[in-house]
Amino acid sequence: MSRSTQQDRSTRKELDPDLGILAVQFAAGLQRELFRRAAEDGFDDARPRHGAVLAYLDADGTRPGELARLAGRNKQTMGAIIDELERLGYVRRTPDPADRRAKLVVPTERGLRFMAVTDGIVEAIERELGDALGQDRYREFRGALRAAVTALPEAGGDAEG
Amino acid sequence: MSRSTQQDRSTRKELDPDLGILAVQFAAGLQRELFRRAAEDGFDDARPRHGAVLAYLDADGTRPGELARLAGRNKQTMGAIIDELERLGYVRRTPDPADRRAKLVVPTERGLRFMAVTDGIVEAIERELGDALGQDRYREFRGALRAAVTALPEAGGDAEG
Repeated sequence: MSRSTQQDRSTRKELDPDLGILAVQFAAGLQRELFRRAAEDGFDDARPRHGAVLAYLDADGTRPGELARLAGRNKQTMGAIIDELERLGYVRRTPDPADRRAKLVVPTERGLRFMAVTDGIVEAIERELGDALGQDRYREFRGALRAAVTALPEAGGDAEG
Repeated sequence: MSRSTQQDRSTRKELDPDLGILAVQFAAGLQRELFRRAAEDGFDDARPRHGAVLAYLDADGTRPGELARLAGRNKQTMGAIIDELERLGYVRRTPDPADRRAKLVVPTERGLRFMAVTDGIVEAIERELGDALGQDRYREFRGALRAAVTALPEAGGDAEG
């Protein structure tokens, strides 16, 4: 008897997802598509969590603390992601030429190729979404998304996925 | 000497984030704010990954396979999240009265309170974003976000954060 009314929440959330659900679906869907295409280009060992490093990394290297700041991750999480990427051959840690006591995370040749390929995939997905939504509507959506990110309170904490 | 040009990527991604970065910032920022407010209401042991269950759960229970489908997670990941929530006292597994061989994930009293509190927090954040962006712009943004989620290819795989 209560079953039908009480089932309403999952049905309602599926038919009319709240903003939190939409945001997660969008981010997860984009990442899935990005890494699916990257896998087709030979990068089948890269995972969405690696994006915290590879989305921001400079060709001649970036300090771990700066990567943590850019990706909104704490330093421990960032260190673990860098360890994984070093093991997979995407980055290596070297002393920073500007300050030998500091470390730089530097992309390998494979890392550089991955960065170029995925930057291109994101551009392609943006074009495809522009085609699907219409260019004007897409441009406004993108601007509003940026404004919404800015309107959310700044966080010091870790961005858990 | 190449340092300044090569640093452009991290600077460019920070000043003009691509869609993948924006999507992750938005989802992570929303989740952080949601769980920060939930912690203030006494739910400081809940984590964003638990949202895969608690965002969709019905008051009288939902099957694990249905939760996995709704959240876009594989069954192993979903099983681990349900284990954690059972340990934390948010849900319990019971036999499904409609089919005693099947299991239902049912919220405890604490789980029900969490679901009510967080549904209210998401509504409050939506109102605040509407105030920040302007109601018309927010409504269009929300509709376009939904259209963008639909336009992304459907996935069979796991939604890793």
